[in-house]
Amino acid sequence: MEELLRYFQRELPEINGFLDKEADQLNGLVRDVAKHIIGSGGKRIRPLLTLLFARSLGYDKDDHHAIACSLELLHSATLLHDDYLDDAELRRGRPAAHLVFGRTETILAGDALLALANEMAARYGNAKLSWLLAKGTMETAVGEIEEIAFSKDPSLDRQTYMEIIIGKTARLIECACRCGAVLAGATPEQEDAAGEYGLNLGIAFQLVDDALDYASPTSETGKPEGGDLKEGKVTLPLILLMEEGDEAGCETLLEALKEKSLTDEQCQDLLAQVREGRYSEKTREEAAAYVEKAKACLDGFEPGEELSVLKQAADFVLTRTK
Amino acid sequence: MEELLRYFQRELPEINGFLDKEADQLNGLVRDVAKHIIGSGGKRIRPLLTLLFARSLGYDKDDHHAIACSLELLHSATLLHDDYLDDAELRRGRPAAHLVFGRTETILAGDALLALANEMAARYGNAKLSWLLAKGTMETAVGEIEEIAFSKDPSLDRQTYMEIIIGKTARLIECACRCGAVLAGATPEQEDAAGEYGLNLGIAFQLVDDALDYASPTSETGKPEGGDLKEGKVTLPLILLMEEGDEAGCETLLEALKEKSLTDEQCQDLLAQVREGRYSEKTREEAAAYVEKAKACLDGFEPGEELSVLKQAADFVLTRTK
Repeated sequence: MEELLRYFQRELPEINGFLDKEADQLNGLVRDVAKHIIGSGGKRIRPLLTLLFARSLGYDKDDHHAIACSLELLHSATLLHDDYLDDAELRRGRPAAHLVFGRTETILAGDALLALANEMAARYGNAKLSWLLAKGTMETAVGEIEEIAFSKDPSLDRQTYMEIIIGKTARLIECACRCGAVLAGATPEQEDAAGEYGLNLGIAFQLVDDALDYASPTSETGKPEGGDLKEGKVTLPLILLMEEGDEAGCETLLEALKEKSLTDEQCQDLLAQVREGRYSEKTREEAAAYVEKAKACLDGFEPGEELSVLKQAADFVLTRTK
Repeated sequence: MEELLRYFQRELPEINGFLDKEADQLNGLVRDVAKHIIGSGGKRIRPLLTLLFARSLGYDKDDHHAIACSLELLHSATLLHDDYLDDAELRRGRPAAHLVFGRTETILAGDALLALANEMAARYGNAKLSWLLAKGTMETAVGEIEEIAFSKDPSLDRQTYMEIIIGKTARLIECACRCGAVLAGATPEQEDAAGEYGLNLGIAFQLVDDALDYASPTSETGKPEGGDLKEGKVTLPLILLMEEGDEAGCETLLEALKEKSLTDEQCQDLLAQVREGRYSEKTREEAAAYVEKAKACLDGFEPGEELSVLKQAADFVLTRTK
């Protein structure tokens, strides 16, 4: 992991500096919301992936920041809208933007960040980048909508769950990787390989996120433990638990999730069952398979620092604890 | 006006057909919201302006619909978000989308339409179009934000009012005109002339809209009479009235608007004063000056059907009653 950390530490200041500079130029009322969400941390995985793929394919210019950071801004915009729509109280351990700035400012700041992201992508005079960004935004919005429909009418169907996490998380990570490849003038095959890496990494990333929700104490993740369950959200650890349960139990649970009538006691009981059955760990094992798929996509890339870091980044997804 | 009407009648079916076809391809949950807002009418001014400028500058291909309609989708997206944030009940005489489909579906459908608009603009392989669209979206979002800040802390300051209507309305119309020019491969001077026309037309359009709010019965506009005042929104007719009033009266009014404590009786009294002082008509007179400015921007364009229609469109803005 040493190379990965060194790479991140070397590149993060410039990425954060670029994001700050762009946010500073926003209109005053948008700026405060933008700086709140950008300044709340975040791993900057998307911009780093864009940079890694661009360089791994031979890009040696120094103008990658606008497209790399546009992915982070798209991500930030979706967080602003989703946190509001989910009535989330915390984001990365800090109060969610809509609680600090109000719903109107938050929704419109999200729109402004979407626009800024598109403007940044358009700076290169390369319409493919704009097209990729638009597609990534669309897929993310659709993923969110499907997740919300799923939460209103939950099931324990794995395929629906997978479609949702692909839409709401993996597609934008795929998009970040494709943008890096396109910036470097990749062949269609190279772009697809980068995209496949991102898609699989994104799936693994969300699986680990959903596993962490059942496993990690609040202080590390900045989120309440078992928050997904309390919100009535069905994720893989719960699906795995129920796959081994009886049919009647599943129906009772689904009914309670749908009616939002799960008691604290029932919640604690389910959390204990997930812990005992090690379903959080089993979710991580499924994530591990996607990490392997992601790494296999890198076979055709030239050896070098970026390739090592991309491999380590895939492994890192599995080891993170927050 | 005959040429204008004939042109609109000839082009509208294709524009509406294109919008329908694009909406049909959206994910099911977004599609219903998109079709609701697209199908609720609207004048399609933005797509028609793109088309008119492209053709007036010699564009003779038949692939203008994606960029023209992207402007309509951007506009629709902002209506979805704004109607929700304004707690609007009606849009074009029909229930606002958020009341039919819910807030989450409406906000995310707006995001998806923003993404679709950007994707459509990116189809041409011309990054300038993507850049214009991003800029138009940003300016519209900022205009909305400034309007909301203004409504929380209202003043009777004309300059602030003008900045707001430029941002929330005129910039996207300017953008529609610039996109048409860019599609046709215009010179920078031609693009700027098209943009100036759009900017002035957009200002006139919003001034007339604000005049209509004080003048028109609900059945024609689909909006409640004096709705802006009841919402505590300061627009030009009210500014004109208060410019001729005493200072104490202005302060009392601003306080009541800020506190949202205006009684029905006070509202009716103000509406009567605006009627008596003909401030709605005086607002139209100010709009007329912008219409003249818009038409002056057309001086360098070649005579032809499109040029006539653009002139008539500018005049039409003044005569509309809904």
